[in-house]
Parts: sequence; C-alpha cells; structure tokens
Amino acid sequence: MLVKSRIKYIQSLGQKKFRDETGCFIAEGPKIVQELLEAGLVKEVYALNEWITENNQLLAGTDTFEVTEADLEKISQLKTANKVLAVLNQFEVTQPVVEKRLLLALCGIQDPGNLGTIIRIADWFGVDQVVCSEDTADVYNPKVVQATMGSIARVKVFYKNLEDWLGQLQATTIYATVLEGADIRTIEKPASGVILVGNESQGISPSLQAFAQVRITIPRKGGAESLNAGVATGIILSHLT
Amino acid sequence: MLVKSRIKYIQSLGQKKFRDETGCFIAEGPKIVQELLEAGLVKEVYALNEWITENNQLLAGTDTFEVTEADLEKISQLKTANKVLAVLNQFEVTQPVVEKRLLLALCGIQDPGNLGTIIRIADWFGVDQVVCSEDTADVYNPKVVQATMGSIARVKVFYKNLEDWLGQLQATTIYATVLEGADIRTIEKPASGVILVGNESQGISPSLQAFAQVRITIPRKGGAESLNAGVATGIILSHLT
Repeated sequence: MLVKSRIKYIQSLGQKKFRDETGCFIAEGPKIVQELLEAGLVKEVYALNEWITENNQLLAGTDTFEVTEADLEKISQLKTANKVLAVLNQFEVTQPVVEKRLLLALCGIQDPGNLGTIIRIADWFGVDQVVCSEDTADVYNPKVVQATMGSIARVKVFYKNLEDWLGQLQATTIYATVLEGADIRTIEKPASGVILVGNESQGISPSLQAFAQVRITIPRKGGAESLNAGVATGIILSHLT
Repeated sequence: MLVKSRIKYIQSLGQKKFRDETGCFIAEGPKIVQELLEAGLVKEVYALNEWITENNQLLAGTDTFEVTEADLEKISQLKTANKVLAVLNQFEVTQPVVEKRLLLALCGIQDPGNLGTIIRIADWFGVDQVVCSEDTADVYNPKVVQATMGSIARVKVFYKNLEDWLGQLQATTIYATVLEGADIRTIEKPASGVILVGNESQGISPSLQAFAQVRITIPRKGGAESLNAGVATGIILSHLT
C-alpha cells in the first residue's frame, strides 16, 4: 500500500507546475520503463509484484516499490494503468551543439502527442537534438513522454526563444518547411543545419522564416490541405538524412 | 430545440451498429462540413444560428436545423462541440480499381486516429483508394472522420478480406513495408501497384507478406524501435509517388 502523501506526490507530476518544482517526471508501461532503466535514468519504480519479479535484474540499484493494481490506477496518468510507473529526474539543461549536426527546431508544436511523435521520428533518423520554441508543449508532460515510446532517453530537447537562438547561429544552414518552397526531393542531403518545423495551423511565423536560407516543400498531388506536423517531419527527415 | 428522439438518433451514430443500420454517419466542425457540403455529400446540417447565417449560400438545398449550444453539445462526439454537425449518407459500396493506379492496403490499423491520418496522407499524395482488412477501424467512426480533415470526401475506402483480394489480383506489383527490405530511397517510383501497410505492433502478417513481390524498408539511423503507421505511410508515399 502506498501512503496517501506519496500517491498525491506522484499524481502531482501530471502538472507542469509540480514537475518544475520537483525537477521530476513520470513514464509508464513496461516498454518505456525498461528502456529508461537500461539507460540508467530512473529514480524510483512503482510496479506490480509480477513485473518486479520478471525485471529483477534490471531493477538492481533502483528504489522499487511494489504496488497493488488499485494503487497503480491511482498514480497512473494512462486510461488503463500498465504494470509499472517510473519517476525520473529531469535531464540536465545543456546547450544544443550545432557544429556538424542536423537539428530540428519546432515552432509552437502544442499537441503533446505530436511533440512526442516528432521526438520518436528524430530518434529513428538519428537526429538527437530538438530545439523547441517556448510555446511548444512540455517534453515532461506524461502524454509527450508516452508518445516518444522511449526516445526521450536518446534525444535531447531544448527550449529557446527561437529568434534569439537562430540569430546567434553562424555558418549554419537553416531550412524552413513552407508551402511554396523547393521540392524536398530535389534538395541535397545536408551534413549539418537546422530544420524549422511549424505548427499545423499557423506554420512557421514570418519572423522565423526570415532566418531560413533554404525553403522546402513536400509536393502535394491530391486534395488534402495539409499534413500532420509529425508526418511532415518524418517525410522531411527521410529525404534530408 | 431538437426533439429528444432526434438527439438520440444523432447520438446513436457514434456506434457502428447504428451506423450500419441507418447507413449514415456524422462529421463535425466548420472546416470538414464545408468541404463535405461543397462535395454535395451532406444529408442534414445541425448548426448554430451564426454559422448558418455565414454559410447560407453553401447550405442551399440541404436540410438545415438551427440548434442551441446546449443541443449541439448533446449531439456532438467532440470534447468541445464546434458550431456545426452534419449527418451524411455512407458512400456507395464499389470495387477498387487496380489498373494503372497506386493503392494502399491497410492490415489491421485499429486506431481510428491513425486510420484517419493515413486517409489524409493518401489524399495529399493523390492516392484515392485505400483497401482495408476487415479488422481495420471503421472509416465512419467519428474519430476517423475527424482525423481525415475532409479527405474522406475524396478517398474511397474499401473493406476486404485482404488474402482473398490480393490473391485475385493479376499483373499488379504488391509492395510490403517490412523491417528487412530494400531501402525505400532506392526503389523506382511505380506507376501502379498496391502498397501494404501493417499495424504498429504486429506489422504485416506472414500470410499477407507472401503476396508481395517487393519488400521495402525505411532505413533507420537512430535508436527508435518503430515509426507510427501514419508517419511510415507518409514517408513511403513521398518516395513512391
């Protein structure tokens, strides 16, 4: 049985305010928690007896609490709790490294599922740094964490005033995904640079577009008005990496 | 004010059983309903006074009911009702045309949001026929309709026993997206064919893979284990169309 104060503490990590105060966040479900344990990133594990037994070796050295299904339901942010919940320390705040790397910069991606999906896509294509505008969803939001499917362990996510940050970059090619740009399939694969991805309804603001040297487009053949930001990012990275 | 029986009827269209019985489905929100009205596909419109006034011309000839915000909340399947709900007749059941066309075939895409997103992506790339296995989500599910963002008006969706259907195809190249196939970026763009897309957890079943002449893969550079089915479909179509 978990004591009430502990349940309340874990529940509070669903809210950004408390995540910021404590410097912690949660991840749930066997797959993600196993990946995070393997990466040595987990602070505490709350799990059903069966899961603890199965993952005994992986849990060595990690504070582990056995919980009942009822308690797990209480602390879970999922519709249906899934065997295990981990509490993690937020990652150290560092600075993005731009030299000889390809980075993504996200302009106001507010849907947590979209942000998580984009982090997972970046990870698939080996892009390990994502710079977010300050109005992008919080990477430690449980919905973002779940949607990354474990990629949060491998991709560094930064929050910046993008105008300031892009303004300071030197000798870096900046790509903007826009409606009227060069066909993505004709662009040479860059060894380094920053790819700006806009949000679905507004795209990339003109003040950010002004930083781009290369304007790129995913050519449309049919009637749909737009592509989801995650899908567009996947297509762009599949052509540029 | 809508009478109770009418409210109950519209609410019932959230369930497949009643959609099948009535042959109807619903779509919501100004953008999708406008697209469907323009395409001449709408049977009845339930909307707030302001929306009816703004869209008077578009509504000519369509049965239109003015509703209060309270009534709209009751009949809506959205978290927050959005000005207008349309009832539509389900599309006529026809047969897919394979000659000189590129089609998608979906194997067990059960998440309604994913199915809707894939239909929208197909529409973007000019693929106007999607053949679904019988265990794929129902295209008339309100969540699918919303996720298509109007593309449901332009893309024909069929439900088939895929083994029977693929078995009958002649002189058609079948592509399967698998983990160990040819790099998608090296495949020649086909003028026609069927692209099989698997579901996220199980991929394409071996019995369906057996029909494929070409096995294709989206090469992975990083650590993510998989891509979302919608994202994968977008990448494949951006390379093959």
